[in-house]
Amino acid sequence: MNRRLSDTAPNLPTLADVARVAGVSTATVSRCLNSPAQVQTATRDRVLSAVATLGYSPNFGARALAARRTGIIGAIIPTMENAIFARAIQAFQEELHLSGLTLLVASSSYSPEIEADQIRTLVARGADALLLIGHDRDPGIYDFLAQRGVPVLIAWAYDPTQARASIGFDNRRAMAGLADEVLRLGHRHIGMISALAAGNDRARDRIAGVHDALRGHGLDPATLHLIETPYSIANGAEGMAQLMALPTPPTAVVCGNDVLAVGALQMARQLGLSVPQDVSITGFDDIELATVVDPALTTVHVPHRDMGRAAARLLVDMVGDGVAPTPVCLDTNLCFRGTLAAPKT
Amino acid sequence: MNRRLSDTAPNLPTLADVARVAGVSTATVSRCLNSPAQVQTATRDRVLSAVATLGYSPNFGARALAARRTGIIGAIIPTMENAIFARAIQAFQEELHLSGLTLLVASSSYSPEIEADQIRTLVARGADALLLIGHDRDPGIYDFLAQRGVPVLIAWAYDPTQARASIGFDNRRAMAGLADEVLRLGHRHIGMISALAAGNDRARDRIAGVHDALRGHGLDPATLHLIETPYSIANGAEGMAQLMALPTPPTAVVCGNDVLAVGALQMARQLGLSVPQDVSITGFDDIELATVVDPALTTVHVPHRDMGRAAARLLVDMVGDGVAPTPVCLDTNLCFRGTLAAPKT
Repeated sequence: MNRRLSDTAPNLPTLADVARVAGVSTATVSRCLNSPAQVQTATRDRVLSAVATLGYSPNFGARALAARRTGIIGAIIPTMENAIFARAIQAFQEELHLSGLTLLVASSSYSPEIEADQIRTLVARGADALLLIGHDRDPGIYDFLAQRGVPVLIAWAYDPTQARASIGFDNRRAMAGLADEVLRLGHRHIGMISALAAGNDRARDRIAGVHDALRGHGLDPATLHLIETPYSIANGAEGMAQLMALPTPPTAVVCGNDVLAVGALQMARQLGLSVPQDVSITGFDDIELATVVDPALTTVHVPHRDMGRAAARLLVDMVGDGVAPTPVCLDTNLCFRGTLAAPKT
Repeated sequence: MNRRLSDTAPNLPTLADVARVAGVSTATVSRCLNSPAQVQTATRDRVLSAVATLGYSPNFGARALAARRTGIIGAIIPTMENAIFARAIQAFQEELHLSGLTLLVASSSYSPEIEADQIRTLVARGADALLLIGHDRDPGIYDFLAQRGVPVLIAWAYDPTQARASIGFDNRRAMAGLADEVLRLGHRHIGMISALAAGNDRARDRIAGVHDALRGHGLDPATLHLIETPYSIANGAEGMAQLMALPTPPTAVVCGNDVLAVGALQMARQLGLSVPQDVSITGFDDIELATVVDPALTTVHVPHRDMGRAAARLLVDMVGDGVAPTPVCLDTNLCFRGTLAAPKT
């Protein structure tokens, strides 16, 4: 399963090739390209002639020069809001700092186009490696990173069908476990407020998990009343209002994350519904929001800090030895708090 | 009040100076330094000779070459956790994106040393401009940025005694306004849970605001029972426990931000105290946490999104025309919700 990351860019000339052809050290090549005024004219001409002969690309050159030297790790997260990614990224940064690395974070607003731009920007600025969230993206991006020799680690998602380096958790199995508990309590009308599934493998896997649990209880997954909406407290509240306005409202609302669940909880209160007596609500993530609301949310605990720290250690190794680790799956666990109970009879 | 940012680095040779001395266009100078292999040897030698004659610094040169070209804006925030900075930074990024700029964010963990490293890294990677939080930092950092010609905008703090470009709000006056309301209700034993004041001008100003309000009511600022602690829900709870264990516990606890206040609220509940009947608690920021707790927090509303968007527009202008705007002070307002009432008689 392991493979040399550098194998993916076999035919591009390296800094060492330029140095060999010019008969100088790699340090001199580097100096010549970065601070030409500090290099003797004769040496400079020899180096630049070697660059031209080999077709050493300035872009690739910048990257090669930067290898293990910029000390920059890039991370692109879908949003800085709502603390969904904040805790893990903060732990990721603190762990990278222990290795003397600087983390630069970009936020893509859940846009694949913005993410692609940010990937190119970070690579052009010499990022030694990248952390990206989820597997879903244009395959051309993975080709681009492989060609540039930039290691990439996927976080937040574990998918046994994907061989690339990743650290995450089984979103599908975790959500199936929670939905199974909801169904065991006797709920038969289930609603779900999910993030937009397009381009978001975590959201899709969590929906699939609820489907799995329904099937496990002999129910048709098509009976799930699913609302997809961008993650925000206000959207969670709006989704809850829609579900409660149905002719037969669900007795339990499974939310794609805690942010949506907190919005659903606020709306329930606004509608005069008691949670969990009148309706059950569950979250996913176990961010701080989950424990400050009253009643506290029943949710899936994701080991955000552990994931952030472990991701940092994996990336440090990948930059150091160029070896892609096998995918890592972390455990999640169910947190039973105050928002889940049996339906009213 | 307006001044040319470039005035702060009056004696450094510019890219245009090199072009003039070498008798070539600035584009040729740029190409010569970035992609020397693409330039005729004779031209290259003329340019590099001009670089040497003028003492044009490669670092400064890299920066000048990068001007209006990398499209990268750097921002360094103290932490990614707790959503304190998240909402404004997300708005900042979205507004920058409209101008085709890419935001790279670093988080300093409230460490001046880490922040200084990150500033150097972002400048070395060609950041066109920087957003930094608060004025407090080694003056050498401002000199470094001025010398490199990198515009810097300070956010989150408005200080009329600081001439540098900034957008923020008057932390001292805003907190004084809230503390004044607390005192008007008749509270005479006030506790405060603040962030660590060292190196954090926002925290110091908020403490000074409470002192101002006490003086305004003829009370000695020394009577304020002040606890300083890093921002976190757990630390807010711990601070509240300490205050409530005093021989004469405060009847109102003013918190340096909403995160600490939510922790204080949790601890009050744990101690069996009703808020606001037994003790009043106030926050600062009006982040989402403030409205999801029950009772919702009485706090100071800070216009985070407006500040983020306006900061982006200011920085785009600063990069474009090199003019430092006069400091901008945004309005805050008091949000009276459920955690402040008169003391028990």
